[in-house]
Amino acid sequence: MSTGQLTVDLAAMAENWAALDRMSTCETGAVVKANGYGTGVERAVRRLFQTGARKFFVAAAEEGAQIRQAVGPEPEIYILSGHMSGDTDMIGDLGLIPLLSSIDQMLRHFEALPGAAFGMQLDTGMNRLGMEPAEWEAVRNLALAQGPRLVMSHLACADEPDHPMNAQQLAAFKAMTDGIEAPRSLAATGGILLGKDYHFDVTRPGIGLYGGLPYIDAKPVISIDLPIIQIRDIVAGESVGYGNTWIAERDSRIATVASGYADGILRIMGPNTQLFAGETRVPITGRISMDSISVDVTDATDIPPALELVGRHQSIETLARNANTIGYEILTSLDARYTRRYVG
Amino acid sequence: MSTGQLTVDLAAMAENWAALDRMSTCETGAVVKANGYGTGVERAVRRLFQTGARKFFVAAAEEGAQIRQAVGPEPEIYILSGHMSGDTDMIGDLGLIPLLSSIDQMLRHFEALPGAAFGMQLDTGMNRLGMEPAEWEAVRNLALAQGPRLVMSHLACADEPDHPMNAQQLAAFKAMTDGIEAPRSLAATGGILLGKDYHFDVTRPGIGLYGGLPYIDAKPVISIDLPIIQIRDIVAGESVGYGNTWIAERDSRIATVASGYADGILRIMGPNTQLFAGETRVPITGRISMDSISVDVTDATDIPPALELVGRHQSIETLARNANTIGYEILTSLDARYTRRYVG
Repeated sequence: MSTGQLTVDLAAMAENWAALDRMSTCETGAVVKANGYGTGVERAVRRLFQTGARKFFVAAAEEGAQIRQAVGPEPEIYILSGHMSGDTDMIGDLGLIPLLSSIDQMLRHFEALPGAAFGMQLDTGMNRLGMEPAEWEAVRNLALAQGPRLVMSHLACADEPDHPMNAQQLAAFKAMTDGIEAPRSLAATGGILLGKDYHFDVTRPGIGLYGGLPYIDAKPVISIDLPIIQIRDIVAGESVGYGNTWIAERDSRIATVASGYADGILRIMGPNTQLFAGETRVPITGRISMDSISVDVTDATDIPPALELVGRHQSIETLARNANTIGYEILTSLDARYTRRYVG
Repeated sequence: MSTGQLTVDLAAMAENWAALDRMSTCETGAVVKANGYGTGVERAVRRLFQTGARKFFVAAAEEGAQIRQAVGPEPEIYILSGHMSGDTDMIGDLGLIPLLSSIDQMLRHFEALPGAAFGMQLDTGMNRLGMEPAEWEAVRNLALAQGPRLVMSHLACADEPDHPMNAQQLAAFKAMTDGIEAPRSLAATGGILLGKDYHFDVTRPGIGLYGGLPYIDAKPVISIDLPIIQIRDIVAGESVGYGNTWIAERDSRIATVASGYADGILRIMGPNTQLFAGETRVPITGRISMDSISVDVTDATDIPPALELVGRHQSIETLARNANTIGYEILTSLDARYTRRYVG
């Protein structure tokens, strides 16, 4: 086994969904885009379906096709990029539900697939995807007459509960949708935590299912262990890795593990990041390579066959801080090359 | 089509290989690990085989298996992580050639697959993978008696031609291998450019095949175009994207394109990065999202259906600078979600 081991705890994922479902005052969907945030979407979606999710959200029609294959005809699969040029066959044949974000998309969908299911995506201030209030005003009656399965918007600042943008977007969403018959959705994980005013008819947790902030009570879902290829002893003054950037200050024992930035271990996190040899913290030495990382295991009395990158001792949020990014990116960077193992 | 478009110019890749082959005073292999540096290894390896490469190098046995499948029984496929525990069946059944880096690996290979092909990996100062001089001295006669297909090492500083480490590693490699009968290999792309003293019997270009530095004359191999999902007009003072970090200083036209950090467009590059609408430079506004990026296209007189991220106007090296990393990581981050199109 010469690849990193990515263990996905499906029971923890299911518990996270169930906990967010209990917090939701309405139906709870699941966001499974980007290969289920790196966990492997087919297993994720089957487990979430089994746990009760009946509405799945993905970014692209291609992702929707993969999920339909994995989970069968029953659940609704929503496409956040809507109905793009070239997507008609996939949407029609597989019964995917595009979340239409513009008049262009509405016309495309109604002309290409008359009578086919759709949802509407409204912009309430994030200015990313969705119809502006004026556009919506112009087409609202036409759209509602066609019976959208969902009318939704997305919060820009839900990870910051005190941000005034949250209340502004809530007010805008209510102004645009109060009184309509179609089911409404505004909240992803952060929005669920903002409380029931934000829940409407369907919530759409994503990051919280996979153990990431802002859901601080999420159970960790993934762990990553990197098998050691080789251990060597070097003397003080010797360098390790590309560019000779790390010089041993003492006689040292260096382990080289399989996995590097090609596996999504962002190169920039190298200087701040430790791995764990059992209970012992062991720092990365020198630059993260494409397929390997060298680690100073001098202080470990016992060296296991693999070192922990994510697990009991270190969370994805720690890696995110080390890489100056967010847990979401740590997860979605997890490459295909890992051996994925499912437990729970 | 709601995914980014990754176009791979196989003719350019073949020309890069042929140019590096002409520079090499010996046989030229090809490094195709990490999914052919993100280009899609199956098409890459078939084209490189057709162009003349007969020795392929990958990081993990699992990658070797995929390449054997793509290219058939003829070429030699070398595994840079050597013979790891659990790899015996794959190595034996598919005739992969592990580059053994330790006495442990030697014993594992000779016991599990007596008579099977192998190579030796020596450490000449990088302290990452390969036998130390003293270890090699101890087992050299035993190893050579088994007829290794290749004896190789790897340079730590080949991207910096003036670094004294290059000559030190060359001298160490010669001291460890002069006089042996087995073919020798020291140079990857950077080593090829250091000149014929570094070439020995086999060179192993990787990054240069895919258009990256340090091979400045490499032809660009990949281009990336991101389809526009939606265009909207906003007024001065409105914000765009997560956290409201970008505020329009003038009335602006904002395009949201499909693809984000889940596609390997490193989130950290956002504030420094532009895309291109035809010939017009158009800056990213606000934070890169998981599956989309918003772009200020106000200055574009003509807005094409997709914006260029990599191509005629912008190289992977520019993106690497913007993300405070190296072109290698830009390439290997290219996720599975792109629609890959092959030309040339």
